[in-house]
Amino acid sequence: MSGNTLGTLFAVTNFGESHGPAIGCVIDGCPPGLALSEADIQPELDRRRPGSSKFVTQRQEPDQVEILSGVYQGHTTGTPICLLIRNQDQRSKDYGDIAQSFRPGHADYTYWKKYGLRDPRGGGRSSARLTAPTVAAGAVARKWLREQCGTSFAGCMTHLGELAIGFEDWAHVPRNPFFAPVADVSALEDHMNALRKAGDSCGARLRVVARGVPVGLGQPIYDRLDADIAKAMMGLNAVKGVEIGDGFASVAHRGSQHGDSPLPGGGFASNHDGGVLGGISNGQDIEVAVAIKPTSSILVPRASVNLADEPVEVITKGRHDPCVGIRATPILEALLALVVMDHALRQRAQCGRL
Amino acid sequence: MSGNTLGTLFAVTNFGESHGPAIGCVIDGCPPGLALSEADIQPELDRRRPGSSKFVTQRQEPDQVEILSGVYQGHTTGTPICLLIRNQDQRSKDYGDIAQSFRPGHADYTYWKKYGLRDPRGGGRSSARLTAPTVAAGAVARKWLREQCGTSFAGCMTHLGELAIGFEDWAHVPRNPFFAPVADVSALEDHMNALRKAGDSCGARLRVVARGVPVGLGQPIYDRLDADIAKAMMGLNAVKGVEIGDGFASVAHRGSQHGDSPLPGGGFASNHDGGVLGGISNGQDIEVAVAIKPTSSILVPRASVNLADEPVEVITKGRHDPCVGIRATPILEALLALVVMDHALRQRAQCGRL
Amino acid sequence: MSGNTLGTLFAVTNFGESHGPAIGCVIDGCPPGLALSEADIQPELDRRRPGSSKFVTQRQEPDQVEILSGVYQGHTTGTPICLLIRNQDQRSKDYGDIAQSFRPGHADYTYWKKYGLRDPRGGGRSSARLTAPTVAAGAVARKWLREQCGTSFAGCMTHLGELAIGFEDWAHVPRNPFFAPVADVSALEDHMNALRKAGDSCGARLRVVARGVPVGLGQPIYDRLDADIAKAMMGLNAVKGVEIGDGFASVAHRGSQHGDSPLPGGGFASNHDGGVLGGISNGQDIEVAVAIKPTSSILVPRASVNLADEPVEVITKGRHDPCVGIRATPILEALLALVVMDHALRQRAQCGRL
Amino acid sequence: MSGNTLGTLFAVTNFGESHGPAIGCVIDGCPPGLALSEADIQPELDRRRPGSSKFVTQRQEPDQVEILSGVYQGHTTGTPICLLIRNQDQRSKDYGDIAQSFRPGHADYTYWKKYGLRDPRGGGRSSARLTAPTVAAGAVARKWLREQCGTSFAGCMTHLGELAIGFEDWAHVPRNPFFAPVADVSALEDHMNALRKAGDSCGARLRVVARGVPVGLGQPIYDRLDADIAKAMMGLNAVKGVEIGDGFASVAHRGSQHGDSPLPGGGFASNHDGGVLGGISNGQDIEVAVAIKPTSSILVPRASVNLADEPVEVITKGRHDPCVGIRATPILEALLALVVMDHALRQRAQCGRL
Repeated sequence: MSGNTLGTLFAVTNFGESHGPAIGCVIDGCPPGLALSEADIQPELDRRRPGSSKFVTQRQEPDQVEILSGVYQGHTTGTPICLLIRNQDQRSKDYGDIAQSFRPGHADYTYWKKYGLRDPRGGGRSSARLTAPTVAAGAVARKWLREQCGTSFAGCMTHLGELAIGFEDWAHVPRNPFFAPVADVSALEDHMNALRKAGDSCGARLRVVARGVPVGLGQPIYDRLDADIAKAMMGLNAVKGVEIGDGFASVAHRGSQHGDSPLPGGGFASNHDGGVLGGISNGQDIEVAVAIKPTSSILVPRASVNLADEPVEVITKGRHDPCVGIRATPILEALLALVVMDHALRQRAQCGRL
Repeated sequence: MSGNTLGTLFAVTNFGESHGPAIGCVIDGCPPGLALSEADIQPELDRRRPGSSKFVTQRQEPDQVEILSGVYQGHTTGTPICLLIRNQDQRSKDYGDIAQSFRPGHADYTYWKKYGLRDPRGGGRSSARLTAPTVAAGAVARKWLREQCGTSFAGCMTHLGELAIGFEDWAHVPRNPFFAPVADVSALEDHMNALRKAGDSCGARLRVVARGVPVGLGQPIYDRLDADIAKAMMGLNAVKGVEIGDGFASVAHRGSQHGDSPLPGGGFASNHDGGVLGGISNGQDIEVAVAIKPTSSILVPRASVNLADEPVEVITKGRHDPCVGIRATPILEALLALVVMDHALRQRAQCGRL
Repeated sequence: MSGNTLGTLFAVTNFGESHGPAIGCVIDGCPPGLALSEADIQPELDRRRPGSSKFVTQRQEPDQVEILSGVYQGHTTGTPICLLIRNQDQRSKDYGDIAQSFRPGHADYTYWKKYGLRDPRGGGRSSARLTAPTVAAGAVARKWLREQCGTSFAGCMTHLGELAIGFEDWAHVPRNPFFAPVADVSALEDHMNALRKAGDSCGARLRVVARGVPVGLGQPIYDRLDADIAKAMMGLNAVKGVEIGDGFASVAHRGSQHGDSPLPGGGFASNHDGGVLGGISNGQDIEVAVAIKPTSSILVPRASVNLADEPVEVITKGRHDPCVGIRATPILEALLALVVMDHALRQRAQCGRL
Repeated sequence: MSGNTLGTLFAVTNFGESHGPAIGCVIDGCPPGLALSEADIQPELDRRRPGSSKFVTQRQEPDQVEILSGVYQGHTTGTPICLLIRNQDQRSKDYGDIAQSFRPGHADYTYWKKYGLRDPRGGGRSSARLTAPTVAAGAVARKWLREQCGTSFAGCMTHLGELAIGFEDWAHVPRNPFFAPVADVSALEDHMNALRKAGDSCGARLRVVARGVPVGLGQPIYDRLDADIAKAMMGLNAVKGVEIGDGFASVAHRGSQHGDSPLPGGGFASNHDGGVLGGISNGQDIEVAVAIKPTSSILVPRASVNLADEPVEVITKGRHDPCVGIRATPILEALLALVVMDHALRQRAQCGRL
């Protein structure tokens, strides 16, 4: 409850630092009886894994997950599930420089001011590496939701920097390193190659969808389903914006155009609201869009200050993603699954059914 | 903790329905010794009050707040503060029709499916009327933050439907019913008059800013300051998008352009990140933008279904805001203040200082 | 979550002071569809009410409860239920003296030291008057549990000061002002008359039982059912000890004697464990015993200090219960019901059934 | 928040099973800057360790703790601290028998009924082995409290079964395997030898004290300091009773005798209330007593049922503590420290000081 836990009934507590001995999480509240082994989790971690293409960080981490508790004879027991991932490819010496100065756009400055000290190795706890346990926990939620409710999750990149990617087919997403829903990603490759040559980075826009979500998830005021989705998404490193349904485009809509009309026999005539009405799921696809800012670790020199408050020039060497959005798709899917899972259990508690 | 509470240490629990006897909230965790009376709260409620111009709902509610507990001899005692607002101008008969059918874009359908019953009078709990207690609680947080940290909050409307309003000066905001930061609001008045004539509604885009926020607020993973801001904002009725700092514009930025460089002597060279780095406040202005969808209560007839799943045409009479964004500014300010307040207390708990 | 809330899913947030305008609570998380009106709650409040016999405080409070929210057409809607009780018979002038000095055994000293100020009127928030909202919330939990699970709650006094009362029949409990399970309470009356004559007070021991509790309630570690019962009981004013099942008598037991043997067909051969095994309900009666210390408000003069740290003699006039245990039975029943209710919802969340 | 977490701001989430690969916990909310290494924690684990005398279980577990996160260059960083203990001496085959039947007094029956499945190896999650992470977390709390507030914790056994031990000196406690505050423990040894010969077990009564606790810890209603202490204690395996201060003896006290008079210059004339008044610490020693029932794992045959609800006779072989109270002292100290620590941070949050 003290800051590093996501969820109330399916509660995921995250721990670890980028260059510490291990990262992981504890899932408390998982329903008993779910068939579960590392093989259910590893594929999701592999989708997020570093080193998988030349467009992402070259840090080599197998990200092998170990289930330490909560599973007996291949089934969850209802007790806490600890998932552990040992760090393997730390090169902390790369970070000697940044220990003394603040990288613009990074959490160096705020950690230092908040805590009075910080672990600078690889960004310590502020590293996107800490999203791996989130993805692992999400895999457990996804499996339960799929089996119990037929819910599924999908995501893709829709913009790489200023490039609009377009949408052809979900089937393309797993076939390219960008999670792009198009057949031809040569323009994206060119874009990234130019960026790397310039030692610079760019942002991205992603879309994530939940299908088959039970009707009725979400609490009326404050703990709305869309509110908790927004929190989970904005809580991801580098995210600066979140939309549900038509999002900011709704501003220019008329009421006569925006409202989704229910249809006899079920369903709606449109989905401008993105699957959430009054904070509660309505059974339509939950549609979320996320803005990710450019990576703050770049080779282009920038002005900053050091711990002594003297002006310095910062160049961030080491191994980094030139666009953190490239690996973000499985993380956003996991976050959405964790929120839906938590609200499914809350609904079952109060209303006795899903 | 069960859905209707915002915050963990400055915890606001909201109760009430639009046409029930009363609405209100309980604030648990307020620091002791704050000078507080109804006079500190009423002005904020008056800014949000219905019936204050012809562009908002004509329901007449004085929204007089009563402090029931937690204050002794004009100072908070550290015990729960209950704030009560009696409803006065209910016209529940206006809602006879909608009790049997689902208004498109409204929470009627989802409440019905979630709970198996609902209070249809004025939207019951899903009414924006329930934002009044949030505003009242926010006034308490604002006073404490102003006195202890010099923090202040301001908001304004930046788009009314498709109209971009522009920004001239904060001083204009309190002088027009739109909270618009411009001197001449005749274009906005024309826009609203045309809308009302058409029986339709529109969306809005708002901006809200916190100044003088202490450095170091926010937890690293999950309970980040920006995450909790996004949750609070998206949890407001009709909100469909939230941005921090440059928001979705960040997608097209380069890292070399986006990262805010710290300056010797304090401060930063820019504020693309909107005052939050790595989930933690950096002392710059916290900049938030919010998208509000068009009101779902309109006179234009729309297709829907009734409780028997038969097709019906719905016209929403009664008294409604043709643009709920018009009264949203004080609510967003209150929500931002509540999040900052909660994280201020959390910071004080863990790190022993602000 | 900030100190004045009991429960996580059936969350009761208590507010008010003894001599403020009102006391009450907000219940968040109540299942929808429960038939509920003030008439379901008032009888429990009447059982706890002051002024009902000459052995309790003579303060006259009708303790009329008003449901402000969460109920529509006689049924709970699933939204927060605010229960309000207006204070009527404050005589704050009685407390002029104690505002400047600390009554031994009272919370005066600790409130002052904690908050730096306090509301001394009638003990302010530390008054046992604040148990009324707990009783009211408990009535809601009891009704739901009775209807859904057949669970019932009963309590009685087993010791009045040094007098052991014995147990004859539950039927006697409502027939005397002591909640004593015996036909003849003349010894108790004599005991109390002597005490009042001496201007002194005494303690009491009470028993409270839950019958028909579903098997399986409670979390394995930390949030055990017995742990949450102990917290709820010890959280009541003046309680200094809690036992489950055989309690302290278990210390002298042998394992061969203590362990309750399950019987074929259901049930157990004994109930030394008081209905909880490994922190989880086993379907047997939950048996709790509670020690209540003597009232700290007495006429016998005692040494203390004043705000200036000077020695003073304190005599507590005003209207007080010479044995707070006399009115504690309905409160303990309510507390037990609230804990069982919360765990019933938690069980339904995780395991999908009761 | 889902059942296996103790504390709100210093939040300890426990995971693991007796015969799984590992046990451990995550501490979220620890203040930054505390000097911390495994050497600060290991001595407390060693005090609780099995196999340390012939009067406790002969399972050989080194209980070596590893800090996986939250510490950098020997100091806590303010981020979650994961503490891991690998299990080493599992002999799960000892538990083949009990997998099919329910041991009287054990959690076998309730886990089975709650979850529909259970890990029977060594009692799985219901094993007292899971108290090791609690002790480890307690060591962190103790160090911070000692350094920041001068608070210390001590415990001892006061009754072994029906034997009253008496109190001579705290100095004796670490010198005998019973944590008994007496020089001569031969009577205790004889008692245990006779028990083991009989294949039986006994209960124990323990005392635990906190000294130097800051004044002002605890919330007024529900989350009182004594309530949270009672919860923590009753949440420990085999505990059936908890007392604060004079506990059940208070029942027979008079108010004139019980109330602790404050003294000019600080302190009180007595400590009947055990350091807590109105749920808030008053600066005196916090005095707690705990009743522990006899171990349920005994060689004496007992009647029970198996999974098919047939009558069976159960004999519990394997390695067990004939009196679990013998190793409980360091656990109770840790639990008390964790509660005090959590409330210290809560106090700092709300009132800005300790």
